[in-house]
Amino acid sequence: MEIKETTLETLEPKEFIADKIKEISSLVGDGLAVNALSGGVDSSVVTMLGFRALGKGLKTYFIENGLMRQDEPQKIVSLFKGLGVPVELFDARKQFFAALKGITDPEEKREAITQAFYKEVFGKLVKNSGAGFLLQGTNYTDIEETVAGIKRQHNILTQLGIDTVEQYGYTLIEPLIELRKPAVREIAKALGLPKEIYSRPPFPGPALAARVIGEATPERIEVVRKATKIIEEELSSTGAFQYLAILHEDKVTGIRNGKRDFGLQIEIRCWESSDAKTGSPTRLTYDILEGLAARITEDVPGVVSVTYNVTKKPPSTIEAV
Amino acid sequence: MEIKETTLETLEPKEFIADKIKEISSLVGDGLAVNALSGGVDSSVVTMLGFRALGKGLKTYFIENGLMRQDEPQKIVSLFKGLGVPVELFDARKQFFAALKGITDPEEKREAITQAFYKEVFGKLVKNSGAGFLLQGTNYTDIEETVAGIKRQHNILTQLGIDTVEQYGYTLIEPLIELRKPAVREIAKALGLPKEIYSRPPFPGPALAARVIGEATPERIEVVRKATKIIEEELSSTGAFQYLAILHEDKVTGIRNGKRDFGLQIEIRCWESSDAKTGSPTRLTYDILEGLAARITEDVPGVVSVTYNVTKKPPSTIEAV
Repeated sequence: MEIKETTLETLEPKEFIADKIKEISSLVGDGLAVNALSGGVDSSVVTMLGFRALGKGLKTYFIENGLMRQDEPQKIVSLFKGLGVPVELFDARKQFFAALKGITDPEEKREAITQAFYKEVFGKLVKNSGAGFLLQGTNYTDIEETVAGIKRQHNILTQLGIDTVEQYGYTLIEPLIELRKPAVREIAKALGLPKEIYSRPPFPGPALAARVIGEATPERIEVVRKATKIIEEELSSTGAFQYLAILHEDKVTGIRNGKRDFGLQIEIRCWESSDAKTGSPTRLTYDILEGLAARITEDVPGVVSVTYNVTKKPPSTIEAV
Repeated sequence: MEIKETTLETLEPKEFIADKIKEISSLVGDGLAVNALSGGVDSSVVTMLGFRALGKGLKTYFIENGLMRQDEPQKIVSLFKGLGVPVELFDARKQFFAALKGITDPEEKREAITQAFYKEVFGKLVKNSGAGFLLQGTNYTDIEETVAGIKRQHNILTQLGIDTVEQYGYTLIEPLIELRKPAVREIAKALGLPKEIYSRPPFPGPALAARVIGEATPERIEVVRKATKIIEEELSSTGAFQYLAILHEDKVTGIRNGKRDFGLQIEIRCWESSDAKTGSPTRLTYDILEGLAARITEDVPGVVSVTYNVTKKPPSTIEAV
């Protein structure tokens, strides 16, 4: 099935929301649907649409995969509780780290996360709940990049010819499939979601596992989580499209207290972009850059070196993994 | 033996030159000394001092180790020929790459180069020439960093308790041992060496092998050589203390002609420093940085991503390996 993009110019948020609520209602009927909320704008919009369409007919899970930002699971669950939407926190850290063990290739890593998420964790949750439908926030850019073979987005299934009913036991509903990120943000606003959600910087599906080059062990995820916290604190006021910390596998020579310290390197990326299709590095001042390097090398154990990516997309991509 | 620094403030270049010429003459006498010229300011000064002291009693080699900048060996030999100093080009590429094969640890890499240089290549050259002395440009910073255990400088032997007479068959003479780089540059000027030499950015002893994280194969050295050429062309006018390209071992996801390209990353470093003891990143404009990234990703095969190091020394070091 060819999917046609609904651009920001042609989007009518209220109409879109009404249409999607109707669509979801008629597909699920009296049945049960589940969805996974990550706190990103895509899954937040899907949660709201699903909840408005189905009420108690929607069961929303927050899957704690061990790869999230610091305190993220608790924050998001309580934010949605405040909006009247019940979300169940499901601890799946063990399953995800087991799936990631020993894997260094980016595509294999993404595949391991896909399998852990859809089959191991979600497959069982859906089966136990008896739901026949899975709502998810796949968007237009995800499909485009996967189909072009640039990067396997974790949430692409149907478009790759995967029969979810046969493989995982549920039907997939993807209400955002014709929208790019800026349009999704408009819908989020129109749904009354707070700014914290609708202006949230994109965070990849494989979460911090995509921010670690090489194996994503709990220890390495913790390093990049600390660096991510610092970068988000320091760069949130820039208004940049996206900003991220990447932990390299390469080690570099540093110096601590006059002694050699063969340590870790963190790469910072901060993007100007409107749609993630192309991008250029934000022209951060050197005061900001050196301040980031100083905080990261002081506060994140083992890090002796910090770089800033200065390549455009293309030939770079937004994320490294 | 405790070595005392002669600072830029107390240095009298003409007096220093006269003293060192006298010292070298009296040590070598009617004997034969050899030295290796790399084209860096240290070895260039040593070559001039040795030539003035010994004339035909000095045999100068340029060791082509396969790790130099593009066209460097030929350029340097002909520059010194123009100054009346004969230099013999010695091709030792095979020996160096054999010594580096399979080695990824920075310290082991440095040790392999030290052994290849002093034992394999120089040991034989000295033996064949019958020389009893080796002149070399070890400076004060080299010793300091090695003794502190930060980084094993390739040219540190005596200070680590290595008996060169016993191990390699020659006595070491180190006329620059009490000077740091800025003082060496003053001596170079006073010796009438051209600006190309006395204001030359420092280049590490292990040359491009120190600019490659992981194994230094001929292919990987060629990648970093191409990037180095671009960086030196674009940054020579900045007046920075040192600028360099580093090839990472980590691979990152890029995009070429709409398709995924899992490729290489080059890290750029450009330093403001007076003595290499401390340093901060040069505040290059984004036009320069993005221009470098564009040229490198276009002209150096396989490279999809370029970063700029924004960390101070300490906790970073000038070089990565």
